[in-house]
Amino acid sequence: MSVKADLRGGAAHGVAMAGPSKPSDRASIRRTNLGLVLRLLRDSGPRSRARIASDTGLPRPTITGLISELVELGLVREGASERDGSVGRPSQAVEIDGRTICGIGLEINVDYLAVVALNLRGDVTFTRRIAVDVRSAGSEAVLDSAATLIREAAAAVQAVGARVVGAALAAPGNVDITTGRVAFASNIDWRDVAAVDGLRRRLGREAPPLRLENDAKLGAIAEYLVASASDIHDLIYITGETGVGGGIISGGQLMRGARGFAGEIGHMPLAPGGRPCACGRVGCWETMVGLGALLRHAAPDHDDPVHDPSLDVESRLADLRRRADDGDPRILEALALIADDLALGVALLVDVLNPRAVVLGGYFAVFADYLLPSVREGVARRVMAPDCGGCEVLPSTLGFTAPARGGAYLALDSVYQDPSATA
Amino acid sequence: MSVKADLRGGAAHGVAMAGPSKPSDRASIRRTNLGLVLRLLRDSGPRSRARIASDTGLPRPTITGLISELVELGLVREGASERDGSVGRPSQAVEIDGRTICGIGLEINVDYLAVVALNLRGDVTFTRRIAVDVRSAGSEAVLDSAATLIREAAAAVQAVGARVVGAALAAPGNVDITTGRVAFASNIDWRDVAAVDGLRRRLGREAPPLRLENDAKLGAIAEYLVASASDIHDLIYITGETGVGGGIISGGQLMRGARGFAGEIGHMPLAPGGRPCACGRVGCWETMVGLGALLRHAAPDHDDPVHDPSLDVESRLADLRRRADDGDPRILEALALIADDLALGVALLVDVLNPRAVVLGGYFAVFADYLLPSVREGVARRVMAPDCGGCEVLPSTLGFTAPARGGAYLALDSVYQDPSATA
Repeated sequence: MSVKADLRGGAAHGVAMAGPSKPSDRASIRRTNLGLVLRLLRDSGPRSRARIASDTGLPRPTITGLISELVELGLVREGASERDGSVGRPSQAVEIDGRTICGIGLEINVDYLAVVALNLRGDVTFTRRIAVDVRSAGSEAVLDSAATLIREAAAAVQAVGARVVGAALAAPGNVDITTGRVAFASNIDWRDVAAVDGLRRRLGREAPPLRLENDAKLGAIAEYLVASASDIHDLIYITGETGVGGGIISGGQLMRGARGFAGEIGHMPLAPGGRPCACGRVGCWETMVGLGALLRHAAPDHDDPVHDPSLDVESRLADLRRRADDGDPRILEALALIADDLALGVALLVDVLNPRAVVLGGYFAVFADYLLPSVREGVARRVMAPDCGGCEVLPSTLGFTAPARGGAYLALDSVYQDPSATA
Repeated sequence: MSVKADLRGGAAHGVAMAGPSKPSDRASIRRTNLGLVLRLLRDSGPRSRARIASDTGLPRPTITGLISELVELGLVREGASERDGSVGRPSQAVEIDGRTICGIGLEINVDYLAVVALNLRGDVTFTRRIAVDVRSAGSEAVLDSAATLIREAAAAVQAVGARVVGAALAAPGNVDITTGRVAFASNIDWRDVAAVDGLRRRLGREAPPLRLENDAKLGAIAEYLVASASDIHDLIYITGETGVGGGIISGGQLMRGARGFAGEIGHMPLAPGGRPCACGRVGCWETMVGLGALLRHAAPDHDDPVHDPSLDVESRLADLRRRADDGDPRILEALALIADDLALGVALLVDVLNPRAVVLGGYFAVFADYLLPSVREGVARRVMAPDCGGCEVLPSTLGFTAPARGGAYLALDSVYQDPSATA
């Protein structure tokens, strides 16, 4: 996980600095320093104790003690030797290990539930997706299935001798991360569902620490961990599913906004007098480019199996993909229409946010080779800034697992904030 | 200037931390600590030396030395006595003084140039605005006038025994802050104008350090310094002039985007098939809510003096304001139309960014009592997040001086970053 990324949800407030708050005791200084060293190893890669000391400004003996504790916690290990420019024998580098520490992410989507368990190195320990018609199943049944998936993932983690430090739930729409409630998610028809409490009750004493976050924001975190390796620190991740949501990374930070609602991009009013939207308005961008629009244009026959929400969305998309590859004019025309409308909204977002990359997820990524040339051309033509403001439009490489993966990263983030809490 | 604000343009990258870089020498440690103490006084208000020591974690004798140096530099002074909870006689508080240190902001707008000089306490030392038809005057003549205004402001600053530490130029459109060039500003018809070099050449040896920034971003900085006093750290400032631009403050930081182009909100395509825009597209938001739209609706007669760009924009708006107060149905209908279209775009931005406040500047603020009830109702109705995501729509209280004022703050910011450089 040698990515230059920081999962902290909120940027620090504008107080340029109020000085380090006076630590109350030695234990809290130690906790702070453990996190500092662990994040340095994550963000800047393996390095020698001497280099950690100079990078952090902490005395060498303090570093030796901190590294011992991190090794004992199973979070770092001695890695390859490193020459740091000095003469003499190379010193032993220290690196993140954390194969025994896992986080779980669970995504509730319109058509499926997905779970991913990741260890601290970023390796996938377990992943599974099941088709669920979430809207008709109702929230209680969905939370039952979600709890089952989390139990399965936790069992798989334990089977490899690791343990779960936390789980994060990815849900569409407006979520309240402090109360763990889904406030309003029009596409799954949830209103004020106490998702975290419901899961905690079902998991009982086995429940790991649980958090809730918006699916697009978690997808953005997962994509940022990929993109940051290319030194991209400003991006927008756009979900391409029944709902169209956005996650914004600005200057390496997840943008949450004043109350965590930032990124609600599916309801931009881009087709005045257009089609009715699940949200009750008309002409929202989602009605133009969401999965529903693709299905409507590409498969006008309602009995076409690609409309069946009980079938897995990936197999339905594979079916449509085959038709496109076979030259079916309906799907090709549908994709051309979608590409135009996608460019319209993406260009607007590029004007407002000036990202370095826009990452298209969900079905947009499945049809990337059909959509991207036209989307890129349309965006380049519309964006006000010269050279598109330096923005590239890219397909997600994480497929439908991005939000669940981002959830697992978020769950692991607590370890970076306070490594001693994993003991 | 007891505002909790940080003028640094770019958020730190996502590297959670790479440790304080190893200071090369004692002088640089001292410089860093001078800035640290000065920013503490700005952000958290006057306080005793003992409290500064505990807030910064620096030893008391070090603080004593730093304060002496800051007093010598004319940046802080002994203020009122402060009781900090301990028994015994109250200790002397130290506070920002800086009446002798000034920054200058100069705004180039479509219809005017404006200059503001502020001292480190935030007091206005000098301000002036002149009507200029910038588009027809051409960039050379405009830079001549700009240089004259900066000279006047600098003379006024010197006349009160103060000195200028820097100046920042606010320009509309796409600006390149590294080269100091205005890349493209459709409303004043500037393309690749070397504004900073041009000013520097005109000012010659008197030229203070010069910077360039987009006008809406500087307006946002000025508004943030007001709003942060109410603990608002996420806001969008919207200019209401011929051009409609945006400045975004997210988590207390100015959002610049990957290349500094963030906030280009005037060209959101909200009226497909609508009116042609100065940018060459049709149906941009600016064509619906910019000053041109108000004038078109309210004063269809082209000979109406409110269309005359050689008259000061504030007096033309005062004229329109009188007509509204007299019940002229054309201006009232125009304002009703504008309010609807303003709500449409503001709601979109609130969905995407979830700010705590949207601050309406320029002519929107002049007609705030006419526009706001309807804008607020329309925004509340449209925004997806419950309770409007906590967002309030507010009129700017800074009038047309916001960008110039933000420029003066930006120019002063260097003092907070390196107080010793003012010597």
